[in-house]
Amino acid sequence: MAREVSALVFDAYGTIFDVHSVQALAESFFPGKGSALSTAWRAKQLEYTWQRSLMGRYEDFSRVTLSALEWSFESLGIEPEDRQRLALLDEYRRLAMFPEAAAALETLAARKPLAILSNGHPAMLNAVVEFNGLKERFRGGILSVHDAKTFKPSPSVYRIAEESLGVPRTMMGFISSNGWDAAGAKAFGFQVFWVNRAGAPVERLGVRPDETIRSLAELPALIP
Amino acid sequence: MAREVSALVFDAYGTIFDVHSVQALAESFFPGKGSALSTAWRAKQLEYTWQRSLMGRYEDFSRVTLSALEWSFESLGIEPEDRQRLALLDEYRRLAMFPEAAAALETLAARKPLAILSNGHPAMLNAVVEFNGLKERFRGGILSVHDAKTFKPSPSVYRIAEESLGVPRTMMGFISSNGWDAAGAKAFGFQVFWVNRAGAPVERLGVRPDETIRSLAELPALIP
Repeated sequence: MAREVSALVFDAYGTIFDVHSVQALAESFFPGKGSALSTAWRAKQLEYTWQRSLMGRYEDFSRVTLSALEWSFESLGIEPEDRQRLALLDEYRRLAMFPEAAAALETLAARKPLAILSNGHPAMLNAVVEFNGLKERFRGGILSVHDAKTFKPSPSVYRIAEESLGVPRTMMGFISSNGWDAAGAKAFGFQVFWVNRAGAPVERLGVRPDETIRSLAELPALIP
Repeated sequence: MAREVSALVFDAYGTIFDVHSVQALAESFFPGKGSALSTAWRAKQLEYTWQRSLMGRYEDFSRVTLSALEWSFESLGIEPEDRQRLALLDEYRRLAMFPEAAAALETLAARKPLAILSNGHPAMLNAVVEFNGLKERFRGGILSVHDAKTFKPSPSVYRIAEESLGVPRTMMGFISSNGWDAAGAKAFGFQVFWVNRAGAPVERLGVRPDETIRSLAELPALIP
């Protein structure tokens, strides 16, 4: 069903950019462990964002990402060289886009102001957006939780988008592939599009996304 | 090294009680899926505690536990009967103790006031403590995050123990098998004993436990 919104705000990691595109590099460094490393790294990275936020000990996403990588190395019995550690971290600045993202964003940018709202440190975010040639698409801004010094799904993060874009929450469309992020945005009051590429169950967090889509390619039909 | 403390506060689930003791029941209901169900259920249960806390949408642990179970059923393609759902939830009221717990708690209770501080709803906690015949051990109280309406590792949770026991945080010994709980308690200012049964890497959350032990059996030697 078509949705009336004034602007669109996108999550970055996992939604536009494929965090598991680091897997190939990890596999080339540590044969047989690339998939396990990528999976552990992402899971621990998210856990640390939630735990640090709750502890009141925010640390920026690039540091959390490094901490999560160190934990994952140890848990898999990997002793990396410095150049391997740095190369893996650097991959976060050149994550691949999901294949349908470029065309969907081009279409949508002609209709609405688009923005990014991400856990990422501003420097990490700007790098990956520029690497993928997407800077022009996000006239609404590349927004980071770094201004709120806490991570998603805290309401103070979603408020950054509302205030920065000057669009009331009920008129904001929010797009995320992370079910818990979709829930946080919906609880805040956004209109939420959950990109459920994997066919995962909906998160039981007391709210449901307004729309569930299988990829960003379905979004233009919903945002005329 | 021997530690000077005035009281000991224990985490419950995973520390005294084995949350994966539900696995056998799950396996009997859903052959071949018991382990996967138990693992998914516990992981999602914890995620929901962190996410709900951050969203400012506390819901008590028995409801979070049910929500996590429902998600896990769906993710594994299980369509349970009502009696199976209820039986699994009911297992949280009769989780098995870890084998060394009874003797360690008996020894320690003769030396210091002991308490429990847990994410659990008070009724769930009291039930599992009584089921295992441990009520007498915890003269310091069976304390629940329910009073703070948020979950670990929020500092407001650890404050419950400090205030309830009337022991300053620097003189409190805190025991948890959950690395992130150990980190939260250490950040709050407790003396922390991390029960690392699985030989997991220490969590990279900016603080480290004071002592790392492999089971509760090592605790009496550290608390003379």
